[in-house]
Amino acid sequence: MEKLTIVKVGGKIVEDPQSLKQLLSDFSKIEGYKVLVHGGGRSATAMAAKLGIESKMVNGRRITDEEMLKIVTMVYGGLVNKQIVAGLQAIGVNALGLTGADLNYMRSEKRPVTDVDYGFVGDVKEVNAVILVDLIAKGVVPVLAPLTHDKAGNLLNTNADTIAGEAAKALSNDFEVTLMYCFEKKGVLLNEGDDESVIPILTSELFEQYVSDRVIQGGMIPKLENSFEALNKGVKRVLITRADQIHTNKGTQIKL
Amino acid sequence: MEKLTIVKVGGKIVEDPQSLKQLLSDFSKIEGYKVLVHGGGRSATAMAAKLGIESKMVNGRRITDEEMLKIVTMVYGGLVNKQIVAGLQAIGVNALGLTGADLNYMRSEKRPVTDVDYGFVGDVKEVNAVILVDLIAKGVVPVLAPLTHDKAGNLLNTNADTIAGEAAKALSNDFEVTLMYCFEKKGVLLNEGDDESVIPILTSELFEQYVSDRVIQGGMIPKLENSFEALNKGVKRVLITRADQIHTNKGTQIKL
Repeated sequence: MEKLTIVKVGGKIVEDPQSLKQLLSDFSKIEGYKVLVHGGGRSATAMAAKLGIESKMVNGRRITDEEMLKIVTMVYGGLVNKQIVAGLQAIGVNALGLTGADLNYMRSEKRPVTDVDYGFVGDVKEVNAVILVDLIAKGVVPVLAPLTHDKAGNLLNTNADTIAGEAAKALSNDFEVTLMYCFEKKGVLLNEGDDESVIPILTSELFEQYVSDRVIQGGMIPKLENSFEALNKGVKRVLITRADQIHTNKGTQIKL
Repeated sequence: MEKLTIVKVGGKIVEDPQSLKQLLSDFSKIEGYKVLVHGGGRSATAMAAKLGIESKMVNGRRITDEEMLKIVTMVYGGLVNKQIVAGLQAIGVNALGLTGADLNYMRSEKRPVTDVDYGFVGDVKEVNAVILVDLIAKGVVPVLAPLTHDKAGNLLNTNADTIAGEAAKALSNDFEVTLMYCFEKKGVLLNEGDDESVIPILTSELFEQYVSDRVIQGGMIPKLENSFEALNKGVKRVLITRADQIHTNKGTQIKL
């Protein structure tokens, strides 16, 4: 099978013109087929503030009411996505920006209300990769915004890590997929205070131990759970790394 | 050749949830291959006002400075485009939202500054229809936002009528194209005060006469010039009509 690399980058990188330019250049140097998944939370929060709308977060996740859904649709699907697409085209990468509604490639359902009502947030239910696979094989590079749809006319806000994981699993039927989650550190750290203490290989066994020892905590836990899930579902390789290392293969490699 | 219909609708129709729903239903009933082109100027003006930015117009055209470019990228490429795509998917139409940057399907150049500096406005220079043709043949329905790019990393605001005309000409190599321009009247009127005075067939000869007699004036003139240009460049049929008539073939048919 041909190789495909899926890179997920957060808002911080893609929202600053200089770091975005560097990222797109590094991304373009990755060999083989490619997919880029982006966030944009900071821009959404900033836009909401400009419009006098308060961003509500619970457990680090955004509450997406009707007004906020319009904002994330504009910011993720329009501003951030299209600036990335135009930036990639400028360096010869044939990018195509997509939300889950486009080509109906990712369908979700509105998250049920439990103790928290997250609002218009989608849990992914179905990935239709057929046309996507065809486009990728033609050299097209999908740029995925963190938005899905319910196929009943509603767009839904969806975590970019989840989008990347679900796309990686679905594309593993046709490609040998490497999934790279980028964040602000060079990899998963053994010692939070030491940026150089990157764990080179993290097995599920080590992961469990580090979680019980509280070496790994907070938002890194769901990211790593997503990673093991992806490996279990056919993704060949998962790397947690910093955006400026994506063309170097450095970082923490996740292994079952 | 297979038949393809390109429908261009203005902002007024797509910005109201009720009229949008009706439009998408009518559009879905058009037989054969389809492309939808949309505006969104009213939403952009409203969003700019909410953000405290004044919309400047010269000769009925928007001056697109850097701040306004961000707004139209959000509103046209994100909010309006993705709501249409999600709405079409809900009724079984496999829509794909595109700006000119996506798939590099439409390249433009920033309009030269003459007596007026329109800012980040693009004049179309090149349409790359190969992948688009392939997607359409697979049943995909492109939904085109009024944005192009210069292939140097910049998105550019581009008139939706122009996008529709340029797409129609380029797709005429592979399809028998009907181009429908929708506006608020049932067709081109012989008497501005009488909504029923629709000219059924408008030839270039009649057009010239009506312009010199001032029967046709204002914004209708460039729309009709676009129409004749499209017919001259291989488009099979051009119709000027009202959005609620697109599945009926009523309106003013333009003939060379």
